[in-house]
Amino acid sequence: MSRLKLTNYHSYKELLELSKKMVKKNYHLKNLIRRPDRLNQFSIRIDNFFYDFSKQRIEETILKELVQLAREVKAKDEFLKMISGEIINVTENRAALHTATRDFTKIPIFLNGADIKLEINRVNEQIKMFSSKTHQKMIKGSTGKDFTDAVIIGIGGSYLGCEFVFNALKHSIKPKIDLHFLPNVDIDNFGQIIKEIDPETCLWIVISKTYTTTETLANLEQALLFLKEHHLDPAKHLVTVTSKGSPGDNPSNPVLASFHMFDFIGGRYSVSSAVGGVPLSLAFGHDVFIRFLKGCHEMDVHASNASEEKNIPLVSALISIWNSNFLGYAAQAIIPYCSALSRLAPHIQQLYMESIGKGTTINGEPTDYKTGAIIFGEPGTNAQHSFFQFAHQGSPFPVEFIGVVNPIYTKNQAISKGVYNHQELWANMIAQAQALAVGKDDEDKAKYFTGNRPSSTIIVNDLTPESIGMLLSFYEARTVYEGFILGVNPFDQFGVELGKILASDIRNQIRMKNTNAAYDFDSLDPAVKFYLDTLFKGSL
Amino acid sequence: MSRLKLTNYHSYKELLELSKKMVKKNYHLKNLIRRPDRLNQFSIRIDNFFYDFSKQRIEETILKELVQLAREVKAKDEFLKMISGEIINVTENRAALHTATRDFTKIPIFLNGADIKLEINRVNEQIKMFSSKTHQKMIKGSTGKDFTDAVIIGIGGSYLGCEFVFNALKHSIKPKIDLHFLPNVDIDNFGQIIKEIDPETCLWIVISKTYTTTETLANLEQALLFLKEHHLDPAKHLVTVTSKGSPGDNPSNPVLASFHMFDFIGGRYSVSSAVGGVPLSLAFGHDVFIRFLKGCHEMDVHASNASEEKNIPLVSALISIWNSNFLGYAAQAIIPYCSALSRLAPHIQQLYMESIGKGTTINGEPTDYKTGAIIFGEPGTNAQHSFFQFAHQGSPFPVEFIGVVNPIYTKNQAISKGVYNHQELWANMIAQAQALAVGKDDEDKAKYFTGNRPSSTIIVNDLTPESIGMLLSFYEARTVYEGFILGVNPFDQFGVELGKILASDIRNQIRMKNTNAAYDFDSLDPAVKFYLDTLFKGSL
Repeated sequence: MSRLKLTNYHSYKELLELSKKMVKKNYHLKNLIRRPDRLNQFSIRIDNFFYDFSKQRIEETILKELVQLAREVKAKDEFLKMISGEIINVTENRAALHTATRDFTKIPIFLNGADIKLEINRVNEQIKMFSSKTHQKMIKGSTGKDFTDAVIIGIGGSYLGCEFVFNALKHSIKPKIDLHFLPNVDIDNFGQIIKEIDPETCLWIVISKTYTTTETLANLEQALLFLKEHHLDPAKHLVTVTSKGSPGDNPSNPVLASFHMFDFIGGRYSVSSAVGGVPLSLAFGHDVFIRFLKGCHEMDVHASNASEEKNIPLVSALISIWNSNFLGYAAQAIIPYCSALSRLAPHIQQLYMESIGKGTTINGEPTDYKTGAIIFGEPGTNAQHSFFQFAHQGSPFPVEFIGVVNPIYTKNQAISKGVYNHQELWANMIAQAQALAVGKDDEDKAKYFTGNRPSSTIIVNDLTPESIGMLLSFYEARTVYEGFILGVNPFDQFGVELGKILASDIRNQIRMKNTNAAYDFDSLDPAVKFYLDTLFKGSL
Repeated sequence: MSRLKLTNYHSYKELLELSKKMVKKNYHLKNLIRRPDRLNQFSIRIDNFFYDFSKQRIEETILKELVQLAREVKAKDEFLKMISGEIINVTENRAALHTATRDFTKIPIFLNGADIKLEINRVNEQIKMFSSKTHQKMIKGSTGKDFTDAVIIGIGGSYLGCEFVFNALKHSIKPKIDLHFLPNVDIDNFGQIIKEIDPETCLWIVISKTYTTTETLANLEQALLFLKEHHLDPAKHLVTVTSKGSPGDNPSNPVLASFHMFDFIGGRYSVSSAVGGVPLSLAFGHDVFIRFLKGCHEMDVHASNASEEKNIPLVSALISIWNSNFLGYAAQAIIPYCSALSRLAPHIQQLYMESIGKGTTINGEPTDYKTGAIIFGEPGTNAQHSFFQFAHQGSPFPVEFIGVVNPIYTKNQAISKGVYNHQELWANMIAQAQALAVGKDDEDKAKYFTGNRPSSTIIVNDLTPESIGMLLSFYEARTVYEGFILGVNPFDQFGVELGKILASDIRNQIRMKNTNAAYDFDSLDPAVKFYLDTLFKGSL
């Protein structure tokens, strides 16, 4: 694959010129947002999803030039290549077909001569059968009891997306099986979870594409020991989600069920595959998972078909690039005014930062421009009482507000200060976007607000499985679009390798000491020696 | 109070000069950390708390000049003024005496002629009595049942610190009363909590200094409606923590118990006051809360007494300033290799960003230098599988690792790859700091690591109430030291006012519509009108 470096495109240079005028007073957001028809011009709506970017620091010529940049780099072509199964993850020589897992069209997708949708459908049918048999109590634990809980053993992309969706839905749909997440190799993560479950009624779902992830294997060993201590048969309590042919895919392994994930889907894009499908179908029923997939698909269709200037994920990616590369913002906050979306930011933090935070272009050249930004966030209004002092008067960063028109709660609501809680929530969400944009003059400099701080607002009607699917797929599409435009590969993660290698060296040292108490760490770097001595001594 | 602007101090200018050499090859961290005695020179240890800053991008002359800066601005004098009760929160004309709540010396602290420690002790005795009577089942709910749960109604500083401590301790000490947190005005936060509790066995603890916080009052109304619907007497289920003379301090209010907090303690510094004391004593017993306070006190004594160069919070504040102002980092990550500390980062996010993220000096001049950085974080190793790709190859940011020598879990541990889980956890923590610092050359640019990415490591022996107290107090002292050195007021938060005013305007509009369905929003800004119309219509 050959493409120019981002900075060599004509529209990139034009945008650099355009960015210079942003310091002028009439480009302050308080003036920009006063322009007639501002909201209509800088918002996009599809069915149940509204994207308002009218409080971003852009105007018509900038938006046009950003769209032009997307055209120049052929971002939509890349997206279409992606969904059709081309090998766009070139550094790992793979396709990137997360969209295929929720493609409800009849169109086949061929990879190496075979229609992968047949395989996807097969796994989905298997999930449907397994979850429905579990719910019908046809599948039981070692001691004949029905399953009530499931622990997901998996880290990073093997749990963050699923955790987000589970938390978003469990408020409105009572889980049939309660989910617990065991990502961390920290033994206290394990210790806490076993206090929350009954071993006889608990499934353990091991999720690892390669089945070599250190944390996951360590926690699997811990779970096997636990099952043994409770005289429970792993073959009745363990479930695996892994790639065909991985060490976990061995038919001689004692497991209750085994589901395939595919090498053409990366961990952080995998929630719509069996990675999310198995736990979420167990939790809520397979029909709910299918509704979630339909929402994902609706956004995928939009992301594929809509023209650049009306394409929500694409425009959102362009604004992100504008903010980090031209306006110099180092971070972006995601602030859902919705408690149920409290695990959205951690999921997008992984999805986006692991995809875009690269030092190398897809052609293997060092990047000489910003690749992404730090993502963080807490729900509003909580965030207002946490870091919004900084957002209003410290170093600025763009904010993405998310609002849900209708709450889940349908019982009686009290009135306080003349409004219902949900109305108070919205009053605050609307006010924060305004306050950040407009600012306020004050002779007392402590009460002076610069304003000119950009935000977007996303609105969905209800927190249904469909709209959560749209939200997830929106962030996935936005992330890959940003990668395509920046010219980095949003599907690899070579940056995590060095830490693994060094951890392996240290693990070897610990293993030596475990088997030979006389072994010492004197040959090591003094800091490493200090930490290992402290660990073995059990005290500073 | 008059002091120079930070940038006018001699040592600030010297540091600017010194920072220029940091681009040189021999100042790359991989070379700095190879220097003999590096760890000893750039670490500080007190009893059960070890602070390693040897992987920060500093060397002797820089550290000396940073310490000189602290001396020039008289940072320690400010700290001593703070703990002795001087009015150092000048913009609000208040003292800042969170340290007094855990001062176990016999020395009185006079404020307006009275020893405030008498008042603090009185409240503490009251908490002790109340929590112990509750545990002894001498205090019961409306229907005669024992209390099993408590919901904390409070937002920002009224819950984040308590939530952090509760989560850190609940793994090792089984709660006598389980805590739930209701900060958000989002009605779904309420809806979720009432699924987790039994109304007859639940206390509601309303925490608000002024008793005027919109979210808290709205949730209190919601709680009162809920109690009424369940025919429960608020006078047997409500507890308040509020200032003397606030609307919540009215003796005619129907409450079970009322505890005072003090205007000389800001919300985000209040976990060692009744704000944390009431819920944490109910959860774990008052003795555990006292142990926590003792840990806080130990760090306070160190922060007050240790010389600048051996003062952990002070040196940590200096390094933070060095990183943001001289090396240009926009964010800092807090990565505890400890699941139980998962809510540390959100608490410090508030504590630090609300304290330091100011646009104005304490003299009322605009700052022309960086005031703080964005704080974010997730536990390791989870973070490694989330945003550490970005940490290694994206825009760099400093990381603070936190390790605990001994895990809580004491049962059998499995072995995987020759090591126990806790050993694997530490191998990773050590390796990440190394990898960030050292980097790796590779002809394949995708596998090239620049290194030179700074980190600190904090180690405590065990996750006891004492060490959690030390950790909390460390971050408090570090934050105020950073404020003192930067010349901003770490105790006010005028930046949150504008949003409140605009929210109040919008609330008024909603109230009008609630009382008169014919009321329209046509006179408002088109974006505000759009959102309010959508909210009332219930659909996009």
